[in-house]
Amino acid sequence: MAGAGLAGSLLGVLLSRAGFKVSLYEARPDPRKVGYEEGRSINLALAERGLHALRQAGLEREVMAQAIMMRGRMVHVPGQTPQLQRYGLDDSEVIWSVHRGRLNLAMLDACEAAGANVHFGCAAFNFDEHNKRLRLRDRSGKERSAGYQVLVGADGAGSAIRAAMEMRIDLGEVVEPLGHGYRELEIPPGSNGEFQIEANALHIWPRGRYMCIALPNTERTFTVTLFLPNQGPHPSFATVNDGDKAEAFFAREFADAQPLIPDLGLHFDERPVGQLATLRLRRWHYGPHAVLIGDAAHAMVPFHGQGMNCAFEDCTALARQLQQHDDLEQAFSAFEAERLPNAKAIQDMALENYLEMRDRVDDADYILQRQLEQLLAKRHPGRFVPRYSMVSFTRVPYAVAQARGRVQREILIEATRGLDSIEQVDLTALDQRIRAELLPLD
Amino acid sequence: MAGAGLAGSLLGVLLSRAGFKVSLYEARPDPRKVGYEEGRSINLALAERGLHALRQAGLEREVMAQAIMMRGRMVHVPGQTPQLQRYGLDDSEVIWSVHRGRLNLAMLDACEAAGANVHFGCAAFNFDEHNKRLRLRDRSGKERSAGYQVLVGADGAGSAIRAAMEMRIDLGEVVEPLGHGYRELEIPPGSNGEFQIEANALHIWPRGRYMCIALPNTERTFTVTLFLPNQGPHPSFATVNDGDKAEAFFAREFADAQPLIPDLGLHFDERPVGQLATLRLRRWHYGPHAVLIGDAAHAMVPFHGQGMNCAFEDCTALARQLQQHDDLEQAFSAFEAERLPNAKAIQDMALENYLEMRDRVDDADYILQRQLEQLLAKRHPGRFVPRYSMVSFTRVPYAVAQARGRVQREILIEATRGLDSIEQVDLTALDQRIRAELLPLD
Repeated sequence: MAGAGLAGSLLGVLLSRAGFKVSLYEARPDPRKVGYEEGRSINLALAERGLHALRQAGLEREVMAQAIMMRGRMVHVPGQTPQLQRYGLDDSEVIWSVHRGRLNLAMLDACEAAGANVHFGCAAFNFDEHNKRLRLRDRSGKERSAGYQVLVGADGAGSAIRAAMEMRIDLGEVVEPLGHGYRELEIPPGSNGEFQIEANALHIWPRGRYMCIALPNTERTFTVTLFLPNQGPHPSFATVNDGDKAEAFFAREFADAQPLIPDLGLHFDERPVGQLATLRLRRWHYGPHAVLIGDAAHAMVPFHGQGMNCAFEDCTALARQLQQHDDLEQAFSAFEAERLPNAKAIQDMALENYLEMRDRVDDADYILQRQLEQLLAKRHPGRFVPRYSMVSFTRVPYAVAQARGRVQREILIEATRGLDSIEQVDLTALDQRIRAELLPLD
Repeated sequence: MAGAGLAGSLLGVLLSRAGFKVSLYEARPDPRKVGYEEGRSINLALAERGLHALRQAGLEREVMAQAIMMRGRMVHVPGQTPQLQRYGLDDSEVIWSVHRGRLNLAMLDACEAAGANVHFGCAAFNFDEHNKRLRLRDRSGKERSAGYQVLVGADGAGSAIRAAMEMRIDLGEVVEPLGHGYRELEIPPGSNGEFQIEANALHIWPRGRYMCIALPNTERTFTVTLFLPNQGPHPSFATVNDGDKAEAFFAREFADAQPLIPDLGLHFDERPVGQLATLRLRRWHYGPHAVLIGDAAHAMVPFHGQGMNCAFEDCTALARQLQQHDDLEQAFSAFEAERLPNAKAIQDMALENYLEMRDRVDDADYILQRQLEQLLAKRHPGRFVPRYSMVSFTRVPYAVAQARGRVQREILIEATRGLDSIEQVDLTALDQRIRAELLPLD
């Protein structure tokens, strides 16, 4: 397998436990020796899909010991007290902030404990399907190769295995840049070591065309991420282009956050602007020769916090198909048929969520719709389940969540049109419509 | 600049001499310290476009001292004496076999002598256009960055700079796999250290759906390359899939070559199958922020021997545009407008040449057309110039060579239709038609 990141190491655990002899080849050095890599987002949102996969790999307890609960979105609007918009009905419906580096370490240990071999500093750059050899380059530039029976590319958005497959067949790759970049900053602990803002929430400063968010870390810090358009006369990374302008921009636009971020301008200057894009492929496998999972197959924008969760679902699906089919092409095809429509659905929902987070969470119509959504969710449990909940708290296929979400959104928009408060809604008619249009889940 | 391969180092020379301060960042270690990289084709065909660029960089004499002249194609057909099909009219129209590794070393030395800094073991993996920093990773996995004013991606077919640009804008990338792979073998010198077959030719064994070729090296060896479809019931890398089958296949299909290749089966098993594809982009630049050259912009199949020659033309064109325009976006746009249609033309001609080499060079109609072509070339110098000659012996833009080649091919096909020998051609009518349809070159 190429890649020992989150997806690669989870699949390594699952396949090793199923009796496969697994070798992972990772371009980076061993993070247990050299420390975490810098420059990648340090916290991730873990939701039910990811938790389920960790449970299957026996890792849930260890990971959750270091996770921070996020009950909902804490929305910061200028001149108002921040408001918590809960993600679910209660604390059983929450997501968890976990540290990417620590999660990866725990999974690498589990992978090796399960019997897999992990080779670091060893970049898979091509393969030879005729001799079934994976071609590897070590850090000194020397080439070697290793035999394989099943080749999985879990080597991330810039996958070399994908590039090698594209030398052989057309995967139909399209990269859709978001046009918005991000920069990471930090809120340190307060003078008594405490969290400086509410710990159990994902903080959002929605500003229409752009936004800031903050996620809690166990060190009682928050990682703050500023999302801005790359170009344009309105605030963009082309206009807010140095530390001084960033200080002034934060003081003006994110007045409650700015005092909490020391050396804001300095850090702004030092850290690179990251870019976001959606990677779409029409195919994920090349005959019986190779298959892609995770970001290598379907990198997405981070606004639903589902990239890792989706990749983990890939792992359980591929491990299952490899156990059910002796024929590799059948296994890969079945995996792709099962997962590709769902990956496409969550990619689209992640893009939509950006609009929602930066532009709608402070909108009166939106808030009314969300209130009605929560009311209907209580009246019709298991039938009217908010799309965010289907994605985050269940394992309903993403494509089903997307389709049902469309029906539900229509219902919410029509039922609240022209209304000022939830008391004006005709619930009896609405109940009837919901029972007619939405079958119970499961 | 990202990449210190052939294109990167030539551009480094040209820009340094023009007064730019140039830094090159190359992922591989210094080949002068660790030796040439294995697994890449070791000889290249140098033609007029490449030579012209080397002349501009003052490298012609040094490179040509180690080059081997190839007068034409030596065509090996079973049961016949090999026939030389000259590329041009005489020894002033030839191409040259040069050693990729040695050429790269000479160019790196020239690059440093011209004042450029070359940093090895330092992979550019992204950039930050807002701070104008190139993001680099060294061989231990550590990240750092370096400032830049002009960013050029000369980092090859798997370009990381291209991938980083694609996170920002749509370059319209399409990869077209050829569907055929290749394996390299070797003919060593004879017992007295001599070349075992004609040294001053590019040898071809055309076999319809596949072929072998051999290029001479200064060590009096030949690099033999077998091109075969990847899949299929006819000879393919899926059916000729081990050393024993390869021995039998060569004994049957390439009977005169097989005894010259010791340990054929062993080497066949050891060496990977390479893959070939054409990389097409709709754009090569991202605003004033970054531009691509060479394989990073337009990797092509190797059948016209023009990949390096085209990349070198890119270098002279980009160096010229950067000197003519202070505005980077204007320089990049002008470079792209000049070179993109020409790269597309040579990519298409390289694909056509595969068909010609493997399937047509031993065909009676084709041979008659070639005879007439040479006759017309002598009767109409500077007007009826064979397409191969325009590509290989002139610097006529590739797109012009392609367009004039179409007109000429029509003329050749129509003039020889149904004829058995060149004496039957009505030259008077043909001369008239040529003067009417083809303007003199220049």
